[in-house]
Amino acid sequence: MPRYRATLAYDGTAYQGYQIQPDVLTIQGILEQVLLLIAGEPISVMGAGRTDSGVHATGQVIAFDLDWQHSDEALLKALNVYLPADIAIQDIRQQPGFHPRFAADSRTYRYDVLESAIRQPLYHQRAWYQPPVLHRDNMQAAAQLLIGEHDFATFGTPPRGENTVRVVYRSEWAEQVIPGGTLLSYTVEATAFLQHMVRRIVAFLVAVGRGVRSVEQFEAAFRAADLKHAKPPAPPQGLYLVQVKYADE
Amino acid sequence: MPRYRATLAYDGTAYQGYQIQPDVLTIQGILEQVLLLIAGEPISVMGAGRTDSGVHATGQVIAFDLDWQHSDEALLKALNVYLPADIAIQDIRQQPGFHPRFAADSRTYRYDVLESAIRQPLYHQRAWYQPPVLHRDNMQAAAQLLIGEHDFATFGTPPRGENTVRVVYRSEWAEQVIPGGTLLSYTVEATAFLQHMVRRIVAFLVAVGRGVRSVEQFEAAFRAADLKHAKPPAPPQGLYLVQVKYADE
Repeated sequence: MPRYRATLAYDGTAYQGYQIQPDVLTIQGILEQVLLLIAGEPISVMGAGRTDSGVHATGQVIAFDLDWQHSDEALLKALNVYLPADIAIQDIRQQPGFHPRFAADSRTYRYDVLESAIRQPLYHQRAWYQPPVLHRDNMQAAAQLLIGEHDFATFGTPPRGENTVRVVYRSEWAEQVIPGGTLLSYTVEATAFLQHMVRRIVAFLVAVGRGVRSVEQFEAAFRAADLKHAKPPAPPQGLYLVQVKYADE
Repeated sequence: MPRYRATLAYDGTAYQGYQIQPDVLTIQGILEQVLLLIAGEPISVMGAGRTDSGVHATGQVIAFDLDWQHSDEALLKALNVYLPADIAIQDIRQQPGFHPRFAADSRTYRYDVLESAIRQPLYHQRAWYQPPVLHRDNMQAAAQLLIGEHDFATFGTPPRGENTVRVVYRSEWAEQVIPGGTLLSYTVEATAFLQHMVRRIVAFLVAVGRGVRSVEQFEAAFRAADLKHAKPPAPPQGLYLVQVKYADE
């Protein structure tokens, strides 16, 4: 059967994460339900990254095998007709042997922190609220320490059998004024991520921004490469999987 | 009783508009429920503008009379503790005799159009989806025709006893690239608006952007000052009440 590769966007608010689980609503579960409708038989979907409950995506990458008699464009339209309003395929094409996880060179995540004196209803499921006290220069300085090949054990646990060394290509904050506050967006690109790694990094960077931890304390905890120095992960609703890059691109 | 004036933000998705109605969820209804909890007696809330079902606000202005023994800051916090996550008071202060509707000099609305080849789940309740075919220069040229004092009868009906002449101070499009598309934001400021006026203007401007109507046809329909030339209103989820201005500011 031909293998299809697709880019997927979703609002993760209503879902218990990407990965299929019995008896709960998941992104993969919905995709496989829709493919069952279209194919008339069970189709397994592979994903590039397992986003947690409440995490969003604008650039998740998936693949599946399907016998389809019409154009790629017609398949994209058919899938998006059946998918709910909070999930949409962005592009689709055939690519023999493509595996979204094993073939990936890097993943890019964004984490939105909303700095505001008052909670902002339009960002309730989209960002992590923080009072307007964040020290930008310190957050940026701490973020930049992560660039390069390092042991990230302070920020998460690896999947079984893997080590905790990863290469971070990009780690930086940007800001944008919005009605009622300032959106501080942290973008991080790496070969791969440990479980909860982005959310643990953001939690620690925000502690630096609030002055609860110094840049030096951040660096010492990071260099210690031990999860016992970790902070609890930042909440999921600020996290977005924005891009997965492949060597063929 | 002291009169309080407050600025209000809300995600309108879950509500049947601002104005209180029996047996349905409205912004004003929720506000009055929360004030009843705080005051122990019914309190009426006045609003600057009646937003429709599904319309959002970052700068709605309200007023109410309340005996409150503590600081304005404490009242703001108390209200926001009881208000649901999709509604939040942004600021509050006492202002004797203030009326949010009668005292208003102008209202500013924004309407977000999401131009994308594919629907974007994260903008599902936040913008009006359009395919990427919109002609910016024509939309901008048509929008600017509305600036000044004109009869806006083509774009809506007035409240009982009022005429259809309004003064538009600002009418323009801006654009911002987002993941998966381009957000085209129309901002319009006027003394006051007719019912559905912003959504009817946007529907016609988008028809111009799509090439279904020319700028000349837009101008002719506008100058005719007759609702029979109107297009059906653009959907509510792209509309935001962003600011109400008062002479005292």
